[in-house]
Amino acid sequence: MRPSGRKLSDLRPISIETGIMKHAEGSCLIKMGETHVLCSASIEDRPPPFLKNTGLGWVTAEYGMLPRATNTRNRREAASGKQQGRTIEIQRLIGRALRAGVDRVALGERQITIDCDVIQADGGTRCAAITGGWVALRLAVNKLMKAGIVTSDPLLDHVAAVSCGIYAGQPVLDLDYAEDSEAGTDGNFILTGSGRLIEVQMSAEGATFTRDQMTELLDLAEGGIAQLVAAQKAAL
Amino acid sequence: MRPSGRKLSDLRPISIETGIMKHAEGSCLIKMGETHVLCSASIEDRPPPFLKNTGLGWVTAEYGMLPRATNTRNRREAASGKQQGRTIEIQRLIGRALRAGVDRVALGERQITIDCDVIQADGGTRCAAITGGWVALRLAVNKLMKAGIVTSDPLLDHVAAVSCGIYAGQPVLDLDYAEDSEAGTDGNFILTGSGRLIEVQMSAEGATFTRDQMTELLDLAEGGIAQLVAAQKAAL
Amino acid sequence: MRPSGRKLSDLRPISIETGIMKHAEGSCLIKMGETHVLCSASIEDRPPPFLKNTGLGWVTAEYGMLPRATNTRNRREAASGKQQGRTIEIQRLIGRALRAGVDRVALGERQITIDCDVIQADGGTRCAAITGGWVALRLAVNKLMKAGIVTSDPLLDHVAAVSCGIYAGQPVLDLDYAEDSEAGTDGNFILTGSGRLIEVQMSAEGATFTRDQMTELLDLAEGGIAQLVAAQKAAL
Amino acid sequence: MRPSGRKLSDLRPISIETGIMKHAEGSCLIKMGETHVLCSASIEDRPPPFLKNTGLGWVTAEYGMLPRATNTRNRREAASGKQQGRTIEIQRLIGRALRAGVDRVALGERQITIDCDVIQADGGTRCAAITGGWVALRLAVNKLMKAGIVTSDPLLDHVAAVSCGIYAGQPVLDLDYAEDSEAGTDGNFILTGSGRLIEVQMSAEGATFTRDQMTELLDLAEGGIAQLVAAQKAAL
Amino acid sequence: MRPSGRKLSDLRPISIETGIMKHAEGSCLIKMGETHVLCSASIEDRPPPFLKNTGLGWVTAEYGMLPRATNTRNRREAASGKQQGRTIEIQRLIGRALRAGVDRVALGERQITIDCDVIQADGGTRCAAITGGWVALRLAVNKLMKAGIVTSDPLLDHVAAVSCGIYAGQPVLDLDYAEDSEAGTDGNFILTGSGRLIEVQMSAEGATFTRDQMTELLDLAEGGIAQLVAAQKAAL
Amino acid sequence: MRPSGRKLSDLRPISIETGIMKHAEGSCLIKMGETHVLCSASIEDRPPPFLKNTGLGWVTAEYGMLPRATNTRNRREAASGKQQGRTIEIQRLIGRALRAGVDRVALGERQITIDCDVIQADGGTRCAAITGGWVALRLAVNKLMKAGIVTSDPLLDHVAAVSCGIYAGQPVLDLDYAEDSEAGTDGNFILTGSGRLIEVQMSAEGATFTRDQMTELLDLAEGGIAQLVAAQKAAL
Repeated sequence: MRPSGRKLSDLRPISIETGIMKHAEGSCLIKMGETHVLCSASIEDRPPPFLKNTGLGWVTAEYGMLPRATNTRNRREAASGKQQGRTIEIQRLIGRALRAGVDRVALGERQITIDCDVIQADGGTRCAAITGGWVALRLAVNKLMKAGIVTSDPLLDHVAAVSCGIYAGQPVLDLDYAEDSEAGTDGNFILTGSGRLIEVQMSAEGATFTRDQMTELLDLAEGGIAQLVAAQKAAL
Repeated sequence: MRPSGRKLSDLRPISIETGIMKHAEGSCLIKMGETHVLCSASIEDRPPPFLKNTGLGWVTAEYGMLPRATNTRNRREAASGKQQGRTIEIQRLIGRALRAGVDRVALGERQITIDCDVIQADGGTRCAAITGGWVALRLAVNKLMKAGIVTSDPLLDHVAAVSCGIYAGQPVLDLDYAEDSEAGTDGNFILTGSGRLIEVQMSAEGATFTRDQMTELLDLAEGGIAQLVAAQKAAL
Repeated sequence: MRPSGRKLSDLRPISIETGIMKHAEGSCLIKMGETHVLCSASIEDRPPPFLKNTGLGWVTAEYGMLPRATNTRNRREAASGKQQGRTIEIQRLIGRALRAGVDRVALGERQITIDCDVIQADGGTRCAAITGGWVALRLAVNKLMKAGIVTSDPLLDHVAAVSCGIYAGQPVLDLDYAEDSEAGTDGNFILTGSGRLIEVQMSAEGATFTRDQMTELLDLAEGGIAQLVAAQKAAL
Repeated sequence: MRPSGRKLSDLRPISIETGIMKHAEGSCLIKMGETHVLCSASIEDRPPPFLKNTGLGWVTAEYGMLPRATNTRNRREAASGKQQGRTIEIQRLIGRALRAGVDRVALGERQITIDCDVIQADGGTRCAAITGGWVALRLAVNKLMKAGIVTSDPLLDHVAAVSCGIYAGQPVLDLDYAEDSEAGTDGNFILTGSGRLIEVQMSAEGATFTRDQMTELLDLAEGGIAQLVAAQKAAL
Repeated sequence: MRPSGRKLSDLRPISIETGIMKHAEGSCLIKMGETHVLCSASIEDRPPPFLKNTGLGWVTAEYGMLPRATNTRNRREAASGKQQGRTIEIQRLIGRALRAGVDRVALGERQITIDCDVIQADGGTRCAAITGGWVALRLAVNKLMKAGIVTSDPLLDHVAAVSCGIYAGQPVLDLDYAEDSEAGTDGNFILTGSGRLIEVQMSAEGATFTRDQMTELLDLAEGGIAQLVAAQKAAL
Repeated sequence: MRPSGRKLSDLRPISIETGIMKHAEGSCLIKMGETHVLCSASIEDRPPPFLKNTGLGWVTAEYGMLPRATNTRNRREAASGKQQGRTIEIQRLIGRALRAGVDRVALGERQITIDCDVIQADGGTRCAAITGGWVALRLAVNKLMKAGIVTSDPLLDHVAAVSCGIYAGQPVLDLDYAEDSEAGTDGNFILTGSGRLIEVQMSAEGATFTRDQMTELLDLAEGGIAQLVAAQKAAL
């Protein structure tokens, strides 16, 4: 029933290749099927101005898409002079999600910026960015710990994200573009490795939904996240 | 226990005054306690370019805050030359939420812009903007129908929004600023008049949460939305 | 003869309601007929950089208009990424006018920003902003004096503004939009409570004018300002 | 008493050299003492969009200052990405003033843009720009008439501008920078060749002023404008 | 003598992998040692406005660098709101170079945009972008020809680029970052497959140079270009 | 054969008038035929931030064109909100070229900004800007040396620039606009007074070129530069 032939609860094939950008403190290329996102982590040894002298660290994210990551070319945001609303919304989400898994006291007064650049898009780029972004973050934090700069692990748990939606009347996991563009309701679920919730975002894009449907989607998400966390572990 | 003395499931006092801006096709001033938002609806008789010749209409929203709506003055976005990420995220949410309650075929090829300007802020401005924005939209659509320009009602149902969160370990409804700035988890729930879900956005801002907590918050939200819809009806 | 039926020397009904924005150090909603402007004063305890270590304070103003304050919706300046020339010209005028009534030594090294946001426009918004802005400024300065932060009153006198113009060949006071859009010559007169001149701006928008006409308009303005100052006093 | 040794009613030496920019339809370099402004007029054979199919023409102006026109280098506005408020205020004034001397029906549906670029600044640049801008406009209109494109002269009269102010307690004509930076009150007077008023802008920059003082300044201005108009005639 | 141990006339290892972005009409990932650039070609079936109804096509380029392509993170240009001067200079060069190898009549009224995004930088990114960009262009043009949309091959010849410079007093080919940051003179040479010159850009960055040195560098470049063209052919 | 009747190796008439802007530390108006550029040098007594505490000075340049310097009016960059790619490319070139002739240790921690504003354009503006910009720089440095602020001359040699190209199949020197717009290949050559090369930029704008042609153009350039350096000396 799904355009890709997947079962309702199937993720797309996952691949996470680390160390892809030699200059970054942590990096990976995550592929969720045909969605490919380059994630890098950059450490700065001072926090953003609003955290000066608080003892707290910060994790933030920026998101971009190459102009031809999509079926038709999008205007380059650097050339048009501003980031689109969608970009800003996504990068705020990524930053919020990753911060929820960080002990900012243990991190100390420094900032880690996660850059997520979509090389190729086929739905679910923000979820791939979070799942891959956490791997880059993990690698960068490992470096800080190995160097003795940070002594207690600031990462509380894995963080991973997956999309779910109601496609052709059925709850499905990990929508690709063909599904995403048709789904009446879809959402993103961000969970920790131990299954606690970080963020739930469900939107009716054409048809409103019920509490029962939300429960079904959340069940699907929990199953998907478990596999994503396993993939993160395998990659590291 | 709540700073305001409200019970866990209490909304703040609601007031919706319509017809507050004489030039707009629909307008109201909504007050949720000390949060005051001016909402207006402006009809344009042509749709945005991407809907030309599709037969579909569009509803969109813009959000702003007067510089001194808050405790300390914020920089005027018009002067700084761009809207902040928070502003963009909020106005996209308002537009999406209101569109979910619109039959865009019945609306026909026209656009209604809902402007939501926060005069005074005390938490929950985006929810107040959605609840009040729907009233402005209803009034504008009434005008179109009275004039015979639109013949079948494009509004499928009421749309209203309320925030919920976990404050001091307890699920609470309709957070004010004092609660919002302390809550470990909070979210916004947007429902129709008949209780169907349009958007659920829950975020851990310090502590992750469980499915059981999400269920409790959703219960609170359903109670709050019923009262907000009643207030919308009373105002119209 | 005037569209509103007013006599040549009639102001529109004036109303000034103070304390309208709870967070601001001073605020009011001024209504000149159907022109409604929210004015707030925000105190910062340090001056702008160019006044550091001079002992002098600063008063500045920003002006905005809600998109649907006017008959047809204007583009939101925050969204378009810059303030229009008209906006910049107006806010520079408001700041200059209010500063002319301030003893900047007595104010000391601090800045007061007057935000003037037009909720509804029907001509004469810049004059209403000055008259109302002075009330907000007065309230904020009162707070500084009550707290003993400022000991000698930095406000030298009232400041109020009114428009005049030649409409249908006749000199008229306080033009509304219907008159303003037809007037061949119009201008703004800013005076102190004791009748001294702060700023005179007269422009031919279609027909040049004579010194005699300017004298007549100035006579009208003096009469109008006296009433505006009385309204300021009543409101405080 | 004046830093330059001039009498109260003395203009600075005026020079207007025409034909200075070979590509422009009209151009001149105007010097008022050490204030030097290049003025050019560019004709476009269609009006701005808002005048399409109205039969009316438009005259507009843009103003700029070379970064090192002043004593210390100013940031180049093209590099900083926006025109300062002062620039915008000035170019709006120049455009308004010149339009007041134009029969827009006779001009027909075309636009003339007057560019005024300050090569060297010593006070009074906006007045020099108006006086020189009118010469450039006159030359461009002459070209249109010679070519038979415009048959009835759209220029109703000369337009010229001069500054006046109260310096060291005395009313003075045509302030240079040394005077301008000290004057308690100053203003710009824009008149036609026949002495009718186009724009009066008087501002208290430190001391409020009286109607009598305004009268004295206007007297000075009338004398100065007569000389400027004579200089315009001599140059053409 | 070279930090990498290469001989003076050695290129870095070249790799060109095509078909790397599934949505693009042509794409490749070019690696010159540790410099990695993603190049894609996007066809639009109409030319830029200035070529409408001329019968001519257009090839243009945009260049970007991922924030962490370099040793320390650069600010994302989309976030800072403008492209840096260096970026603009580079993308103009790429576009000019590729256009020089195109018969714009044969291409017809369409536009091909070459996006060059640097994934990892180690010197010579603009040259890699040109060499790889031509491969993407070739693939896109092949598609147009296979589809019969373009019948006569618009690509006149290969286009490839290489940098040369004087490092430690010696002329060297294909500078990496370690060399580039120390070179007193360097430049970029863009040649066709048959060895004709398209663009020569040589700059003294610390030490001026002689005509003899320029001759030596050009000799090196010719050798390098021949290898790059061979690599292009091998990749296609 | 040349539209101007000049011989292949003829420069246009050169004129360099110094001291044209009274506020600048150095200034000149350079005319290469109908191309007129105002050049000024402004000294700041601190270097740009990236050179703090390095002991090194900086020379940079900004370039602009009056809107009506050209045959049809160009949009004012300050009004459009950004500098065009061409402007940025040119001003980077001017800065680079002038720096190549400066001993930045001898200059010490200060910055000199060369502003080059084209009053009238007829081809070759960037070359005129470099040749004239050097004169302004020389004058400003003279001032620093006369004041004893700089003791060892930081200017190593003259810097001058000239364009060459292949017009109607022939190598020509110092192209004017009529030639430039038709030339198949053209370039800019920047040399020192002693004939060493600073920058060579040759581009095929329609026809690729050979090494022999490049040699011919460089011969022409050397002859032209010698005359330009002589004109610089005569002007000083």
